[in-house]
Amino acid sequence: MSTFELSKEYLEHVNALIAAEDSDALRSEMGELFPADISLVLDELETPSARYLLNLLDTPSGAEILAGIDRSERNEFLKHFTSEEIARYVNLFDSDDAVDLLNDQPIRVREEVIALLEDREQARFILDLLHYDENVAGGLMQKELVKANINWTVNQCIEEIRKQAENVQKVYAVYVVDDQNILLGRISLKKIVLAHKNTRVESLYDQDMIYVETYRPAEEVAELMQRYDLEAIPVVNVQGRLLGKITIDDVVDVIKELASSDTMAMAGITGDVEEDDTVWKQTRARLPWLLVGMMGGMLAAKFIGLFEKDLALVPAMAAFIPIIGSMGGNVGIQTSSIILQSLADKSGLDESLGLRLMRMSMVALISSLIISSVVFGFNMLLGNGLHLAIVVSLALIAVIFLASFMGTVTPILLDKLGINPAVASGPFITTANDLIGYGVYFGIAHVLLGL
Amino acid sequence: MSTFELSKEYLEHVNALIAAEDSDALRSEMGELFPADISLVLDELETPSARYLLNLLDTPSGAEILAGIDRSERNEFLKHFTSEEIARYVNLFDSDDAVDLLNDQPIRVREEVIALLEDREQARFILDLLHYDENVAGGLMQKELVKANINWTVNQCIEEIRKQAENVQKVYAVYVVDDQNILLGRISLKKIVLAHKNTRVESLYDQDMIYVETYRPAEEVAELMQRYDLEAIPVVNVQGRLLGKITIDDVVDVIKELASSDTMAMAGITGDVEEDDTVWKQTRARLPWLLVGMMGGMLAAKFIGLFEKDLALVPAMAAFIPIIGSMGGNVGIQTSSIILQSLADKSGLDESLGLRLMRMSMVALISSLIISSVVFGFNMLLGNGLHLAIVVSLALIAVIFLASFMGTVTPILLDKLGINPAVASGPFITTANDLIGYGVYFGIAHVLLGL
Repeated sequence: MSTFELSKEYLEHVNALIAAEDSDALRSEMGELFPADISLVLDELETPSARYLLNLLDTPSGAEILAGIDRSERNEFLKHFTSEEIARYVNLFDSDDAVDLLNDQPIRVREEVIALLEDREQARFILDLLHYDENVAGGLMQKELVKANINWTVNQCIEEIRKQAENVQKVYAVYVVDDQNILLGRISLKKIVLAHKNTRVESLYDQDMIYVETYRPAEEVAELMQRYDLEAIPVVNVQGRLLGKITIDDVVDVIKELASSDTMAMAGITGDVEEDDTVWKQTRARLPWLLVGMMGGMLAAKFIGLFEKDLALVPAMAAFIPIIGSMGGNVGIQTSSIILQSLADKSGLDESLGLRLMRMSMVALISSLIISSVVFGFNMLLGNGLHLAIVVSLALIAVIFLASFMGTVTPILLDKLGINPAVASGPFITTANDLIGYGVYFGIAHVLLGL
Repeated sequence: MSTFELSKEYLEHVNALIAAEDSDALRSEMGELFPADISLVLDELETPSARYLLNLLDTPSGAEILAGIDRSERNEFLKHFTSEEIARYVNLFDSDDAVDLLNDQPIRVREEVIALLEDREQARFILDLLHYDENVAGGLMQKELVKANINWTVNQCIEEIRKQAENVQKVYAVYVVDDQNILLGRISLKKIVLAHKNTRVESLYDQDMIYVETYRPAEEVAELMQRYDLEAIPVVNVQGRLLGKITIDDVVDVIKELASSDTMAMAGITGDVEEDDTVWKQTRARLPWLLVGMMGGMLAAKFIGLFEKDLALVPAMAAFIPIIGSMGGNVGIQTSSIILQSLADKSGLDESLGLRLMRMSMVALISSLIISSVVFGFNMLLGNGLHLAIVVSLALIAVIFLASFMGTVTPILLDKLGINPAVASGPFITTANDLIGYGVYFGIAHVLLGL
């Protein structure tokens, strides 16, 4: 089967079939697709059409499709479902996906759905998982897994896999526990395939194994799974009891969300906004940061206003306000982005602040000397006067150094304080850097031009 | 085994043991660690120490450790190795990792290493894979996999797994092919565990399966593996013959690299620079973009210089240069970041440019009205004069609209032209937006203030 690409034509075709209520044709069209592809189709349909289409399909497929729809689209969509309908699908979800869906619902719906679940084990799984914050290992794990007692044989493992086959879609390994459910190790499925049926688990399992505790932050889980190339990692409580597992696909989502939230923070956008969100939602996410920029601009205006007399005497001074601002901004963002990247890499050893500042200073020194020399040359060529040329070039050197310093120290400081350091590349810090830059420029000008 | 965290103390301890050439103590210390952890240690050691440590360990562990070291560190490190030494390790690498390592070496070393490989199948694998660009499916795949003929039984599959057990570390599934090696489907390992030994492959395998062709871009492979939650994907040539497989850990690297290169492009940094790179490498990556910003600043200076007479008459005009620049910059970056995010999501349907511009205009309308009203209020309060207040607020509305328009159109255009659209949030476009902003401001001022 070749991979599916959603096209406008295909969507129109599906919409026409829905309008004609041609359920047979729709069922056979959807039969050609994987559930994940049907999720893409539903993402693009109007809610009533999507609901009509979903109801045509059998419940297991429906559950898989619903699990794959984009979360914000799905929340819109589920507003039109009764709790009974939601429960019918959630009954068949993996427990981690079920919790994600329920966490997005109002409390009343959440409790109704849990009460209505036919599979009482699923209800118990969900109640267990709802305790955990979304950003820790406990909030990422699913309860479905295959475990074997250390006293079992390979044959008993295989029977356990058979029993769990419906619940656990993908089995990578069997986790080995003792009578108290303390995690002891794992056996890969490959080993089980190759072992004799009467071999004892005890003589087969790997004790050297990576696991995480429920309270570990999601970033740490992501780092571990990448470092050790794991497709799944077991989760234990503080006593070492096996509670669940986290699979790599959930961690890929974490990695992507982290990267995207950093980019958004750098761009001055709050929260998880997408292009097709409403105008109002986008404005709310963007306006606060624009207002920060505006306040900075007004402060700059007030500050430059103090030098109005100087500007009346040397109006050419105004012309270099932009280059001061943009150099400070560019150097600050470059520096903080490099520091951010190195903070995000949790596996290596952190360097001392002194060493970091030293290297940043060297880069700043070379860059500022080159740039201020070029600018000086231009200013002399353009006949802007020796004094002004000196003032601008000196101010540029100072601004590049200050911006490098702020760009290094701010993200490290924010990180220490537990604030997302990506905001250090955002509008707030950029604005602060601009103000410092103008201060330096007008200060130097005031002294050197003897105004 | 608990997870390893590299500390300064531990590194000092290891360094002391290396200095004392205490090989027994080092071997027993390293025996406590996973190969991936030892890679982290080697990353931080000086090259001679790292080499000494690696030589103490057995070749299979050494190969795993070497495969896990950060690529730029490894290249430094391997400069001190003979081709014979490299070949001894590469002999035991997965073929995809072997190609990554060899691609980083000078041609002479590459050819010597391939000629010296003991495992001639590995040499053949590597020669096959060296053809492919790093950024397509062929460049990500490894040749190691377990395949079964459609006419086999489950028992024959198990024997094949046993035969390949050493070569293929992780087996998720057995790929099913016909006599011409055309990929027909797959059998999950779970199915093999649960099946009777005499069951025929033909009656067991899944035909519905996702695969990729060698020439598909890495981004597309990443998108497919995420959409369908795959831990591995088979790679075929244009005739449908099975050539290799791509595992999720390699794709996670692709996802992370893409995110990081976008952030770097936004920050105005060329290429793959890290904080601990040399001053010179960092300067080279950053200076070109700073020079772009500088040229923009000089152009702005030249442009503002044209209005020197106006500035001499109304020096207060200069005070609002920063707010015009920063508003244009902030709105432009916000807008293009949102568009970028939506361009990166290849699974959904692209919206029409008209719809996109419409929504952006609405957001710009609301934001610009709010911001210009607040700024107008401030200006009146601060006694900056009605005329100047009107000029500034009108200019802000125009600048916010223009920046929204540019922020929407530029990344879409760059994407169409096959250029990384992330540069649209970078210094080049930001500088262009600033210049447009100053033009609008001084234009409006010139007309309305009747200068």
